[in-house]
Amino acid sequence: MAKPINIAILGASGYTGVELLRFLLSHPHVRISALSGDSQAGKSMAEVYPHLIGIPLPALQKMEEIDFSGIDLVFCCLPHGTTQAVIAKLISEQGEARSGRGSGAMGVKTPANKLKIIDLSADFRLEDPAVYAQWYGHAHQAVALQKEAVYGLTEVAREAIRHARLIANPGCYPTSAQLPLIPLLKNKLIETGDIIIDAKSGVTGAGRKASQNLLYTELNEGFSAYGVGTHRHTPEIEQGLSAAAGSEIQVRFTPHLVPMNRGILSTIYVTLAEGKTVDDLRQTLQETYENETFVKILPASVFPSTAMTRGSNLCVMGVYADRIPGKAILVAAIDNLVKGASGQAIQNMNLLYGWDEGLSLPSTAVFP
Amino acid sequence: MAKPINIAILGASGYTGVELLRFLLSHPHVRISALSGDSQAGKSMAEVYPHLIGIPLPALQKMEEIDFSGIDLVFCCLPHGTTQAVIAKLISEQGEARSGRGSGAMGVKTPANKLKIIDLSADFRLEDPAVYAQWYGHAHQAVALQKEAVYGLTEVAREAIRHARLIANPGCYPTSAQLPLIPLLKNKLIETGDIIIDAKSGVTGAGRKASQNLLYTELNEGFSAYGVGTHRHTPEIEQGLSAAAGSEIQVRFTPHLVPMNRGILSTIYVTLAEGKTVDDLRQTLQETYENETFVKILPASVFPSTAMTRGSNLCVMGVYADRIPGKAILVAAIDNLVKGASGQAIQNMNLLYGWDEGLSLPSTAVFP
Amino acid sequence: MAKPINIAILGASGYTGVELLRFLLSHPHVRISALSGDSQAGKSMAEVYPHLIGIPLPALQKMEEIDFSGIDLVFCCLPHGTTQAVIAKLISEQGEARSGRGSGAMGVKTPANKLKIIDLSADFRLEDPAVYAQWYGHAHQAVALQKEAVYGLTEVAREAIRHARLIANPGCYPTSAQLPLIPLLKNKLIETGDIIIDAKSGVTGAGRKASQNLLYTELNEGFSAYGVGTHRHTPEIEQGLSAAAGSEIQVRFTPHLVPMNRGILSTIYVTLAEGKTVDDLRQTLQETYENETFVKILPASVFPSTAMTRGSNLCVMGVYADRIPGKAILVAAIDNLVKGASGQAIQNMNLLYGWDEGLSLPSTAVFP
Amino acid sequence: MAKPINIAILGASGYTGVELLRFLLSHPHVRISALSGDSQAGKSMAEVYPHLIGIPLPALQKMEEIDFSGIDLVFCCLPHGTTQAVIAKLISEQGEARSGRGSGAMGVKTPANKLKIIDLSADFRLEDPAVYAQWYGHAHQAVALQKEAVYGLTEVAREAIRHARLIANPGCYPTSAQLPLIPLLKNKLIETGDIIIDAKSGVTGAGRKASQNLLYTELNEGFSAYGVGTHRHTPEIEQGLSAAAGSEIQVRFTPHLVPMNRGILSTIYVTLAEGKTVDDLRQTLQETYENETFVKILPASVFPSTAMTRGSNLCVMGVYADRIPGKAILVAAIDNLVKGASGQAIQNMNLLYGWDEGLSLPSTAVFP
Repeated sequence: MAKPINIAILGASGYTGVELLRFLLSHPHVRISALSGDSQAGKSMAEVYPHLIGIPLPALQKMEEIDFSGIDLVFCCLPHGTTQAVIAKLISEQGEARSGRGSGAMGVKTPANKLKIIDLSADFRLEDPAVYAQWYGHAHQAVALQKEAVYGLTEVAREAIRHARLIANPGCYPTSAQLPLIPLLKNKLIETGDIIIDAKSGVTGAGRKASQNLLYTELNEGFSAYGVGTHRHTPEIEQGLSAAAGSEIQVRFTPHLVPMNRGILSTIYVTLAEGKTVDDLRQTLQETYENETFVKILPASVFPSTAMTRGSNLCVMGVYADRIPGKAILVAAIDNLVKGASGQAIQNMNLLYGWDEGLSLPSTAVFP
Repeated sequence: MAKPINIAILGASGYTGVELLRFLLSHPHVRISALSGDSQAGKSMAEVYPHLIGIPLPALQKMEEIDFSGIDLVFCCLPHGTTQAVIAKLISEQGEARSGRGSGAMGVKTPANKLKIIDLSADFRLEDPAVYAQWYGHAHQAVALQKEAVYGLTEVAREAIRHARLIANPGCYPTSAQLPLIPLLKNKLIETGDIIIDAKSGVTGAGRKASQNLLYTELNEGFSAYGVGTHRHTPEIEQGLSAAAGSEIQVRFTPHLVPMNRGILSTIYVTLAEGKTVDDLRQTLQETYENETFVKILPASVFPSTAMTRGSNLCVMGVYADRIPGKAILVAAIDNLVKGASGQAIQNMNLLYGWDEGLSLPSTAVFP
Repeated sequence: MAKPINIAILGASGYTGVELLRFLLSHPHVRISALSGDSQAGKSMAEVYPHLIGIPLPALQKMEEIDFSGIDLVFCCLPHGTTQAVIAKLISEQGEARSGRGSGAMGVKTPANKLKIIDLSADFRLEDPAVYAQWYGHAHQAVALQKEAVYGLTEVAREAIRHARLIANPGCYPTSAQLPLIPLLKNKLIETGDIIIDAKSGVTGAGRKASQNLLYTELNEGFSAYGVGTHRHTPEIEQGLSAAAGSEIQVRFTPHLVPMNRGILSTIYVTLAEGKTVDDLRQTLQETYENETFVKILPASVFPSTAMTRGSNLCVMGVYADRIPGKAILVAAIDNLVKGASGQAIQNMNLLYGWDEGLSLPSTAVFP
Repeated sequence: MAKPINIAILGASGYTGVELLRFLLSHPHVRISALSGDSQAGKSMAEVYPHLIGIPLPALQKMEEIDFSGIDLVFCCLPHGTTQAVIAKLISEQGEARSGRGSGAMGVKTPANKLKIIDLSADFRLEDPAVYAQWYGHAHQAVALQKEAVYGLTEVAREAIRHARLIANPGCYPTSAQLPLIPLLKNKLIETGDIIIDAKSGVTGAGRKASQNLLYTELNEGFSAYGVGTHRHTPEIEQGLSAAAGSEIQVRFTPHLVPMNRGILSTIYVTLAEGKTVDDLRQTLQETYENETFVKILPASVFPSTAMTRGSNLCVMGVYADRIPGKAILVAAIDNLVKGASGQAIQNMNLLYGWDEGLSLPSTAVFP
């Protein structure tokens, strides 16, 4: 067997960090070499996550204490806004930024000794510095890298991902919205002007921060809307859809919080393009994804539940006729921590190194 | 104190029946005189609901065994489709059907010895026999009563309710959708052509039927859509909205199932009428409901959660600007078993008998 | 109607505070005159609990800003350890401490103008200063009051409560353990040497503190033990049981955390006294509680669930034969926030003022 | 790679059946050749479990339609009581019953072409026909096989399992109780006369039967005891403990239902043997399980939660001092569907065929 690659996880003490570990610990080709967690530095992972007791892992370090010289791949799970400077520094110590985004013909494979980065934050997801500045309230601090970064929606950008140095791993809501919509927009099957995405997420999407409004007692037996009209995943969704449609798309997007740990379900209201039918939509989705391990199209009689994806890297979707002629409803479900975050990151890692794309990733839900 | 009125609950062994009991047991002016539950006839309520052990209540009977001669008020919690024949028979034994629906000027108060009926099924909610037949697959069997019945959305139809003989208690989804939309439509503040209602319900809405897909293990930690494009609450919503707007309205309505017992949250996408603002909408809602005990309008910074209504007769709503100019989002929450069913029925009973409208009805949520 | 009494709630921003409000807001004889919440001072209750929006309530103040001159009754919901000094100061400003605990013959009714206090903390629950010091790690700072305080387990200490000035409202676990055990010990029906209480609580028992281990995501879909062998409710339970038995009793007590908001269920393992049967136990419980509104004894075929008490002031219990001769199992359920805290406090208030003991207290569970 | 073994699952439409599939689908050495599900015969698995849509699997058949000639291994997930006749028939068609239970020296390896059976029902767990008859109310119908069957508590009976033809896979509660207790009893560290097991289970333990008392709405936000003093896992636990102790042991065992899908936590009250300490217990557990992949001993400061085992084959346990000298408390957690059922069955299969014992079995919990 080939030498395993050495992995560092920055921000390993958050939920996406520990979910990466769940997959990496059963992956045959990797070695977990460093874990950072600034506020918890010095602790073992088992002190931070008791369910990891007994598993040999490096202790948490401060980021600056990590020796990156032997590291092949960094998973970056740091907070939005702080990540760009960290990654810029890491890369500048390894070489210059290169043009990459969208250049399917990039061709040159990164030398094996070059550091690769899969960033799970939002920092490199938006291509346009102006859009970034508008939604995040400050100028992007690594604009060249922002240009280079490949947006890692695996099924859509597989070739670019294979050759990327810096992968901007998609957000959870955007993954659930883009996988059903992109093929329909590419094929001009739906109108671009009135897409509404009503999305519902489990609580892990909010992370592990000790916050009163995330307490069990505040959320259990309750369902609520939040961030109505202002959620930062909106431009990320619009960027992907606009690229697919070849024209500027604005969407209405409302997130909600469901009393469950894992799962996102997006209900998407669309208008059929002139002359198109719901069957056309379903057929296009089936054809687009027929060879995909992790995307399933349901028949018209079955509706997606997040439970069908729990703990797995699956995206399950269906398309349904509305009773108003010319209207259709798409419903897509994922596990926000897996296909919506760490699982897709592992899928991208597998692509990056030429391994079987599904290596160490569950494709059967933990049901019931 | 005046003589209490005698109440019969038909279909008392379902969730809306037992929720009626929760309120009626603390109501000062009623006596629970008969309870029917065909499949459980002969059992005590405590055998069917152990939490009622020790509370003196009549045993469950078959409906035909009930002596209605001393009954003043019937709450009808029978399944959809079977109710109309039952009620027609009850009323024909008491007198003739009278014209009533919508006739605010009806004037004549029902004599105290006349049977009154509050029906929690869907059987008398739709005015138009053709619409009923279309959605329920068979002709209505009591068309005269269907005409007479008053649709009991309390805050909207208070005067008609006071003088009704037969009240068609609104459905849960329709209550959550109509309370925010009706004032806006009446005041021409929103467009009528593109209303989308994305609604989410707790599981009690599905009743107490032993069914595999309602098992704890099937629903817990999962969120799903169901009945996409086909739910029977659609025409009920459209009827109310059309009446408010003075023109025919079609809506897109999608229900979802949330892993919680109680609560409905409806997220409603609307387009502002020419020249109108979100503030106009909020102000109209505030003015419409400012003297209501059970309807609360939230400020722009607070989003409704079903937890704010849990166990209470409240409807909590807010209106929010979308980031796309000219678009707004309404969010409304209720407890589906209370304001969405049994609580509103009690509210209507209180109106019917001239009592304080909130008598025995909680106006503070059971939170946390 | 008589003049309402004026109430202050200290620590109103916690869960027991807001649960007191749920009852007090529908109570006919009280006025909520002051609310303290040091860390939230200056805010309205609706800012702290959005479900209270629209309800007229005094704003939260710092404790020292409250004018107690017009206050008749204080509910004290402050943290353990800090309460004793606060209450000592309040009372010293109103008069001297008087001998009270256990003195059924105390006789003198407190003048109406004297401040009364119902303390929901643990500070005055333990009679013995040495036991207090041992479990809380510091000397009690109001020993005379500790002597005076009446332990407010309503059904057990009703007469003393009527005449108390300072009521130490029982803990949640101790309420669920003492109500079934005290009558059995008083009547010498069980052995005193090997009582084991395995107790399970919903998460509201832990309060509203922003703490990582109380996050929704950490607790949902998990069940755990905590504080094994060391929980501070142990001496409180032992004090009540010892008094009932007339001899020193030690118990084994283990608390657990259940993924639900409300409810405590205690499973209690006992050995029958020589010659006694499970039926003897059940009969004694039935006789003891037959006239109680809030205590229900289940038949042998029905097992308690916390759902039978949800949102209500009920305690539901059963006693069951073990298959090993001479052994029995008691199971008791309460809502920890109601009978285990704020509901019992209201029940005690009603006693204190000679009102109907159940005034404003639900005696039917919010089920389902 | 060697030829895969052919597997049939009888009763594949239940929760243990579908959980077996979750593991088998990622197992490199097996082929799923037949699935039975009498009431669902003719359907695809995806019709019965929509989360399996898209996975190629044999359709469900009636048991009698299965051709067992090519089958190497049967997992039997049939209801208790019906299984013994089925297995007796299967085996009689393949050869005679052989003496096996407990015969560590059995020696002869079953030829590869002989059918092997892993039974997940309770039918072959009890060695003694009289005990079986007493608890199940009828005589055992395959007494010779009952004698032959090896009780498959993997960590305890590894050698016997390797050579078994018929493995009686342990029950969920018994697994959680025996793994901590057996080493302590074998080493005479605890008294045998007063063991109490207070156990709490998630709802999947009750199976997928459409039953009113298993509805989401009946169980959510409630915690209850059930089967107090009468649960059929009691004799299974006592059999294992008695064998370990070398003397007859009776335990007190009470099961409870937790509002969660997966997980069992057993809290076990024991008395230390003369001169023994809690540290002795912990050390013995650590030594017993130090080389086990799936058993973890927690330090004294950490308490088990079922969340630490969710979705994995782990058993996590701790031992804690009670405050009463000479008493200790053991707490053990498993996922009832994995280590408590299908996971342990796979672990036993791996042993049976000489594969890595953990093949296809998760050893990291799905947390959060």
